[in-house]
Amino acid sequence: MDISTLQGVVPPVVVPLTKDRLLDKDSFARNINRMIDAGVNGLFFLGSSGGVAFATDAQRDEILSEAVSVVAGRVPVLAGIIDIETLRVVEQAKRAEKIGVDGLVATAPFYALGGPREVERHFRVIHENISLPLYAYDLPVCVHTKLDPTMLVRLGKDGVLQGVKDSSGDDVSFRWLILENEDAGHPLQLFTGHEVCVDGCYLAGADGSVPGLANVDPDSYVAQWKAFQAGNWPEVARIQDYLARLMYIVRGSKATVGFGAGVGSFKTALWQMGIFSTNQMREPVQALVGDDVKAIVEVLKKANLIASDAPIRE
Amino acid sequence: MDISTLQGVVPPVVVPLTKDRLLDKDSFARNINRMIDAGVNGLFFLGSSGGVAFATDAQRDEILSEAVSVVAGRVPVLAGIIDIETLRVVEQAKRAEKIGVDGLVATAPFYALGGPREVERHFRVIHENISLPLYAYDLPVCVHTKLDPTMLVRLGKDGVLQGVKDSSGDDVSFRWLILENEDAGHPLQLFTGHEVCVDGCYLAGADGSVPGLANVDPDSYVAQWKAFQAGNWPEVARIQDYLARLMYIVRGSKATVGFGAGVGSFKTALWQMGIFSTNQMREPVQALVGDDVKAIVEVLKKANLIASDAPIRE
Amino acid sequence: MDISTLQGVVPPVVVPLTKDRLLDKDSFARNINRMIDAGVNGLFFLGSSGGVAFATDAQRDEILSEAVSVVAGRVPVLAGIIDIETLRVVEQAKRAEKIGVDGLVATAPFYALGGPREVERHFRVIHENISLPLYAYDLPVCVHTKLDPTMLVRLGKDGVLQGVKDSSGDDVSFRWLILENEDAGHPLQLFTGHEVCVDGCYLAGADGSVPGLANVDPDSYVAQWKAFQAGNWPEVARIQDYLARLMYIVRGSKATVGFGAGVGSFKTALWQMGIFSTNQMREPVQALVGDDVKAIVEVLKKANLIASDAPIRE
Amino acid sequence: MDISTLQGVVPPVVVPLTKDRLLDKDSFARNINRMIDAGVNGLFFLGSSGGVAFATDAQRDEILSEAVSVVAGRVPVLAGIIDIETLRVVEQAKRAEKIGVDGLVATAPFYALGGPREVERHFRVIHENISLPLYAYDLPVCVHTKLDPTMLVRLGKDGVLQGVKDSSGDDVSFRWLILENEDAGHPLQLFTGHEVCVDGCYLAGADGSVPGLANVDPDSYVAQWKAFQAGNWPEVARIQDYLARLMYIVRGSKATVGFGAGVGSFKTALWQMGIFSTNQMREPVQALVGDDVKAIVEVLKKANLIASDAPIRE
Repeated sequence: MDISTLQGVVPPVVVPLTKDRLLDKDSFARNINRMIDAGVNGLFFLGSSGGVAFATDAQRDEILSEAVSVVAGRVPVLAGIIDIETLRVVEQAKRAEKIGVDGLVATAPFYALGGPREVERHFRVIHENISLPLYAYDLPVCVHTKLDPTMLVRLGKDGVLQGVKDSSGDDVSFRWLILENEDAGHPLQLFTGHEVCVDGCYLAGADGSVPGLANVDPDSYVAQWKAFQAGNWPEVARIQDYLARLMYIVRGSKATVGFGAGVGSFKTALWQMGIFSTNQMREPVQALVGDDVKAIVEVLKKANLIASDAPIRE
Repeated sequence: MDISTLQGVVPPVVVPLTKDRLLDKDSFARNINRMIDAGVNGLFFLGSSGGVAFATDAQRDEILSEAVSVVAGRVPVLAGIIDIETLRVVEQAKRAEKIGVDGLVATAPFYALGGPREVERHFRVIHENISLPLYAYDLPVCVHTKLDPTMLVRLGKDGVLQGVKDSSGDDVSFRWLILENEDAGHPLQLFTGHEVCVDGCYLAGADGSVPGLANVDPDSYVAQWKAFQAGNWPEVARIQDYLARLMYIVRGSKATVGFGAGVGSFKTALWQMGIFSTNQMREPVQALVGDDVKAIVEVLKKANLIASDAPIRE
Repeated sequence: MDISTLQGVVPPVVVPLTKDRLLDKDSFARNINRMIDAGVNGLFFLGSSGGVAFATDAQRDEILSEAVSVVAGRVPVLAGIIDIETLRVVEQAKRAEKIGVDGLVATAPFYALGGPREVERHFRVIHENISLPLYAYDLPVCVHTKLDPTMLVRLGKDGVLQGVKDSSGDDVSFRWLILENEDAGHPLQLFTGHEVCVDGCYLAGADGSVPGLANVDPDSYVAQWKAFQAGNWPEVARIQDYLARLMYIVRGSKATVGFGAGVGSFKTALWQMGIFSTNQMREPVQALVGDDVKAIVEVLKKANLIASDAPIRE
Repeated sequence: MDISTLQGVVPPVVVPLTKDRLLDKDSFARNINRMIDAGVNGLFFLGSSGGVAFATDAQRDEILSEAVSVVAGRVPVLAGIIDIETLRVVEQAKRAEKIGVDGLVATAPFYALGGPREVERHFRVIHENISLPLYAYDLPVCVHTKLDPTMLVRLGKDGVLQGVKDSSGDDVSFRWLILENEDAGHPLQLFTGHEVCVDGCYLAGADGSVPGLANVDPDSYVAQWKAFQAGNWPEVARIQDYLARLMYIVRGSKATVGFGAGVGSFKTALWQMGIFSTNQMREPVQALVGDDVKAIVEVLKKANLIASDAPIRE
């Protein structure tokens, strides 16, 4: 599938597990189909929200294979090839390519310290070893390196990168990336990883968004994209306000922090909404329980994603 | 002057020095008058862009007195009362109040380590000791503490804070601040400190902006505000793109980093544009020279703020 | 007083307050005299432990004047001249010089961002404006800049710096500083700010220590210094183990973090030991209470600094 | 091999590559044998210095297999099982166990954000899935999590951990770890990862060291350990001073930062000393060249590890 002009809403897909921490294929298909039916423009598997860090290679392959099978060509499939350094990333890429995805998404190297020279070389070496389009995933909160916009546009012009998923939270840098990309003839497709500030990114000229929260409410993100296409900015912002309040689900966890509170909240929401059968997490993360679940349900009720009198699932 | 409904463009005023590092009063008046003539809604003195960190108490007093005298009531005057911890901030406040400003702006405490309990108490103690409206200045890059939106709204509801200048760069937090503030009845006036992402902040519901770059081009920030008031979002974004490219002036310095590169670039631009008579900096920062100046002039020429055939001032 | 060969134990003096947050002169004298009687080699006022960040200029002057009066030439008096940027530091220095201290201690500039060029210039400008010996205070946890050992030795050779108080916690850098200083002919007197790893620093060649915990137990730090002078390394380490366990007083606070937990614990210990009359803190920090006090008393009892059957003071 | 009382010098082994970036088995054996002949007490493969981050699973297996074969039971072999999150680490462990190493070394999880709850669970799950002794590797510079000493001792008492390699650079925390471990009956063997402050760690009570620089000069680290065993502290410190100056090899790189400058310098030193046949690095890191190599040779000549008139190898 040609993804050279991919744009719009491309959610990073949250992966449901059974109580025994196996892939819950029924829930997985339900989640994928619900997002495709809502009209998303693509799906991104094995991103941070997809729990890539916690999955073994075999588990990653299982997720991707199932994903390709369920999606069945209805929308493009992007796959995270997240690993520590270049050669390991290339290995992840080769397995993903065999499974039949449409594009690959790589972060800067992590764990070992490096500088800009190594980061640029990293993407070039990956590109030399793969045949699919490559997206850079700017995620300093996880990899502790910010990708430089000028370098990204250079890699775009050189045909190394097809696009960028910007989850840096640095909207100044993202704006400069957009402008430098325009001035270079738009070699890169630029996606924001924001859930909460997507409207501003569209106004700035982003080509799309990759919001984890779209697992919980894909309709609203699609509606927001359509309002943007129609130039209806008050509606783009109104939907964003609603989604920004829905994102309160990740703010209330008392039991933990980080991934367990963030993606754990997405899983808990999808469980309480009946899309997932549990909110199970992979080791060493524990599923949210008790008051943390209740706080999420309260937010979902305010958003009318759960009926106000619905009991809490247990 | 009642500033309880202050909104719009409130530039942090860059302070010109003579070669001997004394306050250059003529240039200062020129800069102030140029911004007021452009239609800004207020002026913020002794902020980070105003070099507050580098000025002694006497120098601060001189700047504020001169500012109040030049502004002469045409627009509200906000004054930074930046100091290390609470009691020192109160002292800065008392001196500023005597000089006759209209509102005060304080950061979280810095240098000594603390937690959220100390930050909240800090603002409450300042408020108890002053009579003017108090704004919180969220500036983690300088003070290494991020202000929590829920705390800020609580302080707004309690009458401690009149507003917030958000220079955190954390637009997710700023969006949540806006929403929590709305849900509380809008006790706070919320200003973004962005230069580059002001359009997204307006779309999100900000009450105004405090962009250092407005020293260089106040007309465009005022025009952007008016386009926002008129609901002309394509124009808001178009002006932002222009200003985001103008902000390239801060990206090119080879000689230094931080304040010397950032505010140093603003001063250099104002010098080359003929508003300032030098680009002198206070110790220990050195003025930009040579290629760093040339790079700034190139950006200014592209922005048509300097004629394309103008010679470089020396 | 000539402090060019100052070495040994130079505690940063913790400053007691009355309930009303005024300087508690009796307790202050008690604390100073107790340390001098124990045999310390100097005293450092207005350091971080001395609450410099929280004191107004008038309060700083009061502390220094009282200190000089109580010490009365028995040991050298160093004074922190902590302020944001260069010119403000010079002002602090000039006031301290008038009060009659023997040496001055300055950190890198903070709040405004800068680079190594500004840091070096900062110390040079301070030195040009003062007549007393100048020590650099390496405290990245507060000022967010690490001082480079090569730069420090260069400033030593150039007569700008007399010594360094290293509170960086970076013992690799401190070792290189010691070695570069040796190779340059020992222009700098090098003090570690550690409480817990002083033995290793003596083994590495430090000229002395500036441990806040010496307020609580000056005798042990002096005994450790003497054991070091005698080359009795097992004794140096044995005393260090005792002191490292005594430092557990700062590890247990549930109510707060940072200065309130650290120096707050020192104050609480001195209060419970009868040296201070309260553990009051300056705004916005609150004094430790309840279980936090009990946890500190337990540690003091294990160290035999409080009798095992002593009641908790309230 | 029983490693429950392992102590002394356990270098992390630097791995030589051919020009084509294949494992250089001859140089690898030379390096291993040289360290064993010098009297090291164990060897640690696939640590950070061992380039674990840059090696694919197949390359890791090749390194470990070759290591086990060359070492041939002369000293214990520890193996790093570095991977992103728990399940992936367990997979690394299972492969290493099959190859026949004597102990396993795991860091905290990285990439995905977590808290102390996840970190502790991580080590417990790894332990439940392996049969070999497990060491925790405290390496916040790479994994951005500091291991808490109290948690480590708890894991020691529970039989989860056999020991700790502390490369945190936080010697206060290490001292508290040593003391808490003593008070718990010494369940953990505690190794410092320092190159430059090993003497202080021995004085503090460390059970040994894991210095990357021991690849360059194993004799001196072994001599230092023996001097420590003999209680000859001046000699322990004298050797440390020599080694701290030898460590200057990592300080001079102009071309790069991080791993390429650090382990790149070790490789360059071993190449210039004739132990390695090149200083080749794995992608995306480039080998040091030109002046960076010359600066390293200068340090080696001062240390008498290269003859003063030896030509530079190219």
